[in-house]
Amino acid sequence: MTQSDTRNRKFVLAQRPTGEPDASTLRLETEDVPVPGKGQMLLRNAYLSLDPYMRGRMSDAPSYAAPVAIGAVMIGGTVAQVLSSDVAGFAVGDWVQAFGGWQDYALSDGTGVINMGKSPENPSWALGVLGMPGLTAWAGLTQIGQPKAGETLVVAGASGPVGATVGQIGKILGLHVVGIAGGAAKCAHVVDTLGFDACIDYKAGGFPGALKAAVPDGIDIYFENVGGAVFDAVLPLLNPKARIPVCGLISQYNATALPDGPDRLNLLLGTILRKRMTLRGFIVFDDFGHLYPEFAKQMGEWVKAGKVQYREEMIDGLELAPAAFVGLLRGEAFGKRVVKLAV
Amino acid sequence: MTQSDTRNRKFVLAQRPTGEPDASTLRLETEDVPVPGKGQMLLRNAYLSLDPYMRGRMSDAPSYAAPVAIGAVMIGGTVAQVLSSDVAGFAVGDWVQAFGGWQDYALSDGTGVINMGKSPENPSWALGVLGMPGLTAWAGLTQIGQPKAGETLVVAGASGPVGATVGQIGKILGLHVVGIAGGAAKCAHVVDTLGFDACIDYKAGGFPGALKAAVPDGIDIYFENVGGAVFDAVLPLLNPKARIPVCGLISQYNATALPDGPDRLNLLLGTILRKRMTLRGFIVFDDFGHLYPEFAKQMGEWVKAGKVQYREEMIDGLELAPAAFVGLLRGEAFGKRVVKLAV
Repeated sequence: MTQSDTRNRKFVLAQRPTGEPDASTLRLETEDVPVPGKGQMLLRNAYLSLDPYMRGRMSDAPSYAAPVAIGAVMIGGTVAQVLSSDVAGFAVGDWVQAFGGWQDYALSDGTGVINMGKSPENPSWALGVLGMPGLTAWAGLTQIGQPKAGETLVVAGASGPVGATVGQIGKILGLHVVGIAGGAAKCAHVVDTLGFDACIDYKAGGFPGALKAAVPDGIDIYFENVGGAVFDAVLPLLNPKARIPVCGLISQYNATALPDGPDRLNLLLGTILRKRMTLRGFIVFDDFGHLYPEFAKQMGEWVKAGKVQYREEMIDGLELAPAAFVGLLRGEAFGKRVVKLAV
Repeated sequence: MTQSDTRNRKFVLAQRPTGEPDASTLRLETEDVPVPGKGQMLLRNAYLSLDPYMRGRMSDAPSYAAPVAIGAVMIGGTVAQVLSSDVAGFAVGDWVQAFGGWQDYALSDGTGVINMGKSPENPSWALGVLGMPGLTAWAGLTQIGQPKAGETLVVAGASGPVGATVGQIGKILGLHVVGIAGGAAKCAHVVDTLGFDACIDYKAGGFPGALKAAVPDGIDIYFENVGGAVFDAVLPLLNPKARIPVCGLISQYNATALPDGPDRLNLLLGTILRKRMTLRGFIVFDDFGHLYPEFAKQMGEWVKAGKVQYREEMIDGLELAPAAFVGLLRGEAFGKRVVKLAV
């Protein structure tokens, strides 16, 4: 389906999912394109980002951010074009990075919107390596990971937009970088294209042993995107004074109950104590948003120079977004999943 | 038993304990007082510190420090007097702070030994508020806790030498301070003498609810000494961006197996993520030893001015040390347990 000039398609949250989202979670609605008021601009969304954090917003469990209300449009980062503007600093035809949501059109007063100018080279990359996932990778690694050349970095979700960027920055900074990804194709990409020193397939037999063999000097930094069995394999390999930026736990987002015992909570605390480790959770814009300009300049240079590679998986059409999101949570994405709305 | 001028009594590690140490763990031996060689000094231990970390050194589980060897003297911090010296900077009659072990006499080449001069006011306090436990409290709170006036600090083991000091420093720095201790007498001491805003008895019924009521604004810093049920009560009360210096887990040191499930390891990781918390384990001399001079100056002033109170529980005689240590692990100590050797 193509975008209409007069009607706005939008996915609203129909009900909160138990476990994996399904067809009853989101509902497609149409309405007239909204009319901007004074001090507002009208955006036509061109690209919608799909990100694991969205699962959290579907739930009303206590979290760092308010849940999406039942009946409200599902939130999401977008790259859009300005159709009309009563906001200083934004003109018709400008490309912008915004939180336009799972819909064709959005109104904005400019808060949190970044102007990308009239002709950005790869507009959708602002949803990946040059945007939130890129900042997440850069800030989490540099600010929490505190990398020192020669150390060993292990990155979960290594073929995803955050993990791929973390590992490539790690190589630029002189680290020994080992990725973890699901499947031989992703692992080949991580090593051959992204330049990691090694990549271990967590779906293959003997995963913990293969990981151990790949980090002969232990692990100094573990960039956590995944949790579950991947964390279990990493934990005994961590070195004293290891740093763990806790960025995501995609393996746990659809969990409906705690796994069976034994209870390893105090085991983890004891490991933190004995190994003098640092674990720190972060939400990128809340914790490191003030570093965005520094990030944008540095990452822009790296991407332009070909030092950081970036892979997108384009989903053609808003109507495919819900299924693509469920697949993302299942680990089926290969690169950054972006929904192209203007098809 | 009094100290002999010619014979050295020492407790050696007879066998590694399973669970709680017992009569078979340590063995009392006697030998001639050792003769110092070139570049050595002979110390007569006056006070021996009892500390929870010693339990870890009895085991050969992977840890931050090598275990005590079977047959070797049990390690421990001591305050001693110099009997003879071939070490620059140490003269006969000087009081020193050293790691002299569970014995009457020790040899030293001066490494890691601090000279306290000829007539320190309270020599044994160098094993508590003015020594390792004090530095642990001060460094853990200020360096990892990153306290800001008006925040809420919760301190486990609040009547112990570390916890008591953490909370009193917290009050000096303008925090709302709530202690957790075992029993009404300890809690009364924590509030009435140490000046905490409140103290919750973890042995009393309704502990989690009482703790919750004592922290109406949630918990910004939790100084972890205990683990187990105390941590379980703290976890849901932690605020976003909470900091947790992980200093000790006394409730877990004698554990021989993981508790029954469900497995809450990923629950803890998820809480770290959602609340953007920082957990950091530390070993005080390894991580913060370089801050000792700054600590000693500051704490010396506070103690002299009466701003930091200190309670000792003196155990009279080396032969009572093993039972006193087991009691310490059971939470029976009320204040800093020190063994007086020169009785």
